[in-house]
Amino acid sequence: MTAPKQTRENDLEKLRELVKDIDFCMLTTVDEGGDLHSRPMSSNGDIDADGDIWFFTNASSHKVSEIAKLPKVNVSFADPDNQRYVSVSGTAQLVRDRAKIDELWRPEFKIWFPEGKADPEIALLRISLEKAEYGDSPGSTIEYALSFVSSLVTGKQPDLGENKKVNL
Amino acid sequence: MTAPKQTRENDLEKLRELVKDIDFCMLTTVDEGGDLHSRPMSSNGDIDADGDIWFFTNASSHKVSEIAKLPKVNVSFADPDNQRYVSVSGTAQLVRDRAKIDELWRPEFKIWFPEGKADPEIALLRISLEKAEYGDSPGSTIEYALSFVSSLVTGKQPDLGENKKVNL
Repeated sequence: MTAPKQTRENDLEKLRELVKDIDFCMLTTVDEGGDLHSRPMSSNGDIDADGDIWFFTNASSHKVSEIAKLPKVNVSFADPDNQRYVSVSGTAQLVRDRAKIDELWRPEFKIWFPEGKADPEIALLRISLEKAEYGDSPGSTIEYALSFVSSLVTGKQPDLGENKKVNL
Repeated sequence: MTAPKQTRENDLEKLRELVKDIDFCMLTTVDEGGDLHSRPMSSNGDIDADGDIWFFTNASSHKVSEIAKLPKVNVSFADPDNQRYVSVSGTAQLVRDRAKIDELWRPEFKIWFPEGKADPEIALLRISLEKAEYGDSPGSTIEYALSFVSSLVTGKQPDLGENKKVNL
């Protein structure tokens, strides 16, 4: 269903528009036993120019150890009031770069990290977006195959850095 | 963090209370390549006495073929207005039992199945609940390990029927 003329840039712009008012999304990971877990995350309202979504995290949290083993994740954005649902498939990587933490840090994050951005446990999760799908028409969202009328494939090869050789 | 006296019945009751006003949830599945996909589903507002969540589906939909191979799924419920987020891990099974379809069918589902409940493509997905986690305090939901203060383990052995031998 993807229009042939869609460009990656247009796709990203569309995706940003879809999620810009959805503060919290659900990040789903797979644990060693194959069980799927999700938890709410703040996406800081942005998807960057590379198609990456960034989350602040505690470096020793359970999801970080899950991602180290199985980096494939899903990020879902739900806006029930507008019947808007977005599914993003991607690959997660832990990033401990202090310059990036400085760049993305906002004072209000002290709610979650009372010690501030100097907290050595603070890290980032970078989700490299590989595919996004969405439904935004009321009454057509129960059946994925029918309702998710647009598929955004970025064409990006995710840079997995040290996780490059981890395959599922 | 689970109180020792929690019983499965209490857990289910708590879970029902948490999700009763959330009409749509996101069902996340894993495809053959290990990619995670989610799509909105109507949970019909109920979790039955066995701890099962039922969804209507088209039997030939893409998610059904994913589940046949990898039955582990996640169902997430998001209520952003109340900062309430619930993650349910479970095992999915396709159910084509006509009596069960009759029992759960409601006339308003014709929006999705115009031919009504006699449509031979109509089927059910039964999600056997294995674990549920939730966060319901504002400002504490970004960090799963900190905010999901209760873990509901049903203790139920899922009856996977013909899928019994499928392991991930």
